[in-house]
Amino acid sequence: MISIAAELDGRSIQIITANTSVFSPEEVACVRELWDEYRQHGAQTSGYYFVVEREEGRVRGYACYGPRSLTEGTFELYWIAVDPQCRRAGVGRLLFDWVEKDIRQMGGRLIVVETSGLEKYAPTRRFYLATGYILEATLKDFYKDGDDLVIFTKHL
Amino acid sequence: MISIAAELDGRSIQIITANTSVFSPEEVACVRELWDEYRQHGAQTSGYYFVVEREEGRVRGYACYGPRSLTEGTFELYWIAVDPQCRRAGVGRLLFDWVEKDIRQMGGRLIVVETSGLEKYAPTRRFYLATGYILEATLKDFYKDGDDLVIFTKHL
Repeated sequence: MISIAAELDGRSIQIITANTSVFSPEEVACVRELWDEYRQHGAQTSGYYFVVEREEGRVRGYACYGPRSLTEGTFELYWIAVDPQCRRAGVGRLLFDWVEKDIRQMGGRLIVVETSGLEKYAPTRRFYLATGYILEATLKDFYKDGDDLVIFTKHL
Repeated sequence: MISIAAELDGRSIQIITANTSVFSPEEVACVRELWDEYRQHGAQTSGYYFVVEREEGRVRGYACYGPRSLTEGTFELYWIAVDPQCRRAGVGRLLFDWVEKDIRQMGGRLIVVETSGLEKYAPTRRFYLATGYILEATLKDFYKDGDDLVIFTKHL
């Protein structure tokens, strides 16, 4: 079940992020920064919306998204992660469906997701394509030499 | 002549931004926010580097750029604007050359610039192409319906 992330979910979100094995320490720290903004100022002011997927009290995954500044109705999906012990249970799909529905309700027209072109992100990229996202652009060597930025979009 | 922007240049930067006639009130406000970050925390901490081009004491244009988080050596050129009364004097070119040199000195490998696909930005897009940038991607209806995002890059 999806719900809006509360204070106590911060620790689960950090642990899941650290345990996914794809995120670097800088990326884990970045999730923490967005979380702190969200907790201090709330979703609307910070621009970061955090939701968690929970089963029997245990957080299995989370997503963080928000409106892109200077646009009308464009949202970015900043982070989405599922506890490695809870894979293949449809948690990612539940989170995606929620995010899309929530963005629609906020008047969103377009969702943009950025990810890496590295091999370890291949399952992530396949997942985006399977959920109706379009591979829109690849910026070569964006993250570092040999690590491209891949941009997916979905028009709602 | 280009120099690092000082406290007193804030007003000129705001006036130039407002006078270019291409930026919306939200975009003018965004420049102001980045400027405030820069003045309060400095370029390194804020991540926003502001430089101005000046002739006989008068600021003719400015640029704002900085490292893109979670990348190694990728920089974004956030804003560049020239006083409409000083066009065709090579101010834009001076600013571009400086920005490129400075980014190189900071270990930058790649510069990314985002702009709009609207007709009023056609001169801007031509300018990027003329200074060696490559049109890398176009995200349809990104800013709003009918207003695409156009991404240019330059590998250094």
